[in-house]
Amino acid sequence: MKRRHHVFIATSLDGYIADAQGGVGFLDTFPMPEDTDMGYYAFMDKVDALLMGRKSFETVLGFGVAWPYTKPVFVWSQTLSDIPSELKDKAFLVSGNLEEVEKQILSQGFANLYLDGGQVIQSFLQADKIASMTITTIPVLIGKGIRLFGEVENPLKFPCISTTRYENGLVQQVFERQD
Amino acid sequence: MKRRHHVFIATSLDGYIADAQGGVGFLDTFPMPEDTDMGYYAFMDKVDALLMGRKSFETVLGFGVAWPYTKPVFVWSQTLSDIPSELKDKAFLVSGNLEEVEKQILSQGFANLYLDGGQVIQSFLQADKIASMTITTIPVLIGKGIRLFGEVENPLKFPCISTTRYENGLVQQVFERQD
Repeated sequence: MKRRHHVFIATSLDGYIADAQGGVGFLDTFPMPEDTDMGYYAFMDKVDALLMGRKSFETVLGFGVAWPYTKPVFVWSQTLSDIPSELKDKAFLVSGNLEEVEKQILSQGFANLYLDGGQVIQSFLQADKIASMTITTIPVLIGKGIRLFGEVENPLKFPCISTTRYENGLVQQVFERQD
Repeated sequence: MKRRHHVFIATSLDGYIADAQGGVGFLDTFPMPEDTDMGYYAFMDKVDALLMGRKSFETVLGFGVAWPYTKPVFVWSQTLSDIPSELKDKAFLVSGNLEEVEKQILSQGFANLYLDGGQVIQSFLQADKIASMTITTIPVLIGKGIRLFGEVENPLKFPCISTTRYENGLVQQVFERQD
C-alpha cells in the first residue's frame, strides 16, 4: 500500500483540535514566534494539494482573512452544494467514500495530499494511508472538544523522527508511519 | 497556591495510559533504548514520595517484578483495606478527598509528590496542584483505552520546557505549569 498523504496540525496538550463549540481560540494561548513559520512553508512545498472536510473549510472561511492556500484545496463533503464564487479556481468539492475521493484527486495529477480536519484525518488513518504527521502541541489543557484521533482497527506505529521546541513553549513533532 | 507535585508518565500517541482492558502492553511497542533511563532516576531524585491510585498500584503488583520504588508509595483508595505484608514498610494506604490525602502525606514530611495514574493526575489537575508533567510519547495509535487527561474547569497552561527524541522513535517532553 502506497502511503503518501500528510498531516500538519496543531492540538491542545490534551489532544483537541477544536473546543466543544468547534472554536480554535486555544491556538492563540501563547504568542506566536515571529522569526519562524514552524515548518509550514517547507511542509506545503512537499504536498500537491489539500483535502479538508466541510467544517475545516468553513472554519477557514470564518477567519475572515485572505484565502491562505497556494495549492488547490479539495473539500470533502456530502452536503455542501457549492463553493463561494471567489474561490472557484482555488477550492473544489469532492464527495463519495475515501477511495472515490482519493481517486478523483489523484486522477487530476495530485499525488501527495495535505489532509486537514479531524474527520478526514481519522478516515485516512483508518485506511492506513497516512505517511507522516507533523503535530504542533499548544501546551494548554482545554478539557473537552473535538479530538484529533479516533478509533483505529489495529495499532499504527508512527515513530517520532524529529522534535522542536519553540521559545513560546510550543513543541512540534514529526511522526512517520512504520509497519 | 503552592504547586509542588509532578507527573512522569508514558502515553500512546493518541493520549492513552492504558488500553481498554487496563493493559499497558503498548509500552513495549518499540524496543527500549539501553543507554538511557529516559530521565527516570533524575526525576525520582526530585520527589519525596509517590501517590498513585489503586489501579496503578495493582498494575505494578501485577508486573510480577521486584518492588521498583525507592521512595515511599502512598496508595489512594477508598476500597482497598490492606497493603500486602511484604510491602508494609514501602507502601501506605491513604483515603479521603484530595485535600485530606495531600495533608496526610505532607504532614509526614513529604513535600514533592510523584503523582501516578489517570484518576490521581486528573484530580490534581482539577485542583491545579501540579507543577510539572514529564510525558513520554510511545508513538503508536491504539484507538481507545484510558486517557491521561480528563475535563478541567479552566484552561491550564503548561509550556514545554524541554523535548528529547530517542533513537527508538519515542519522544519525551517536560511541561511546566504557568499562570
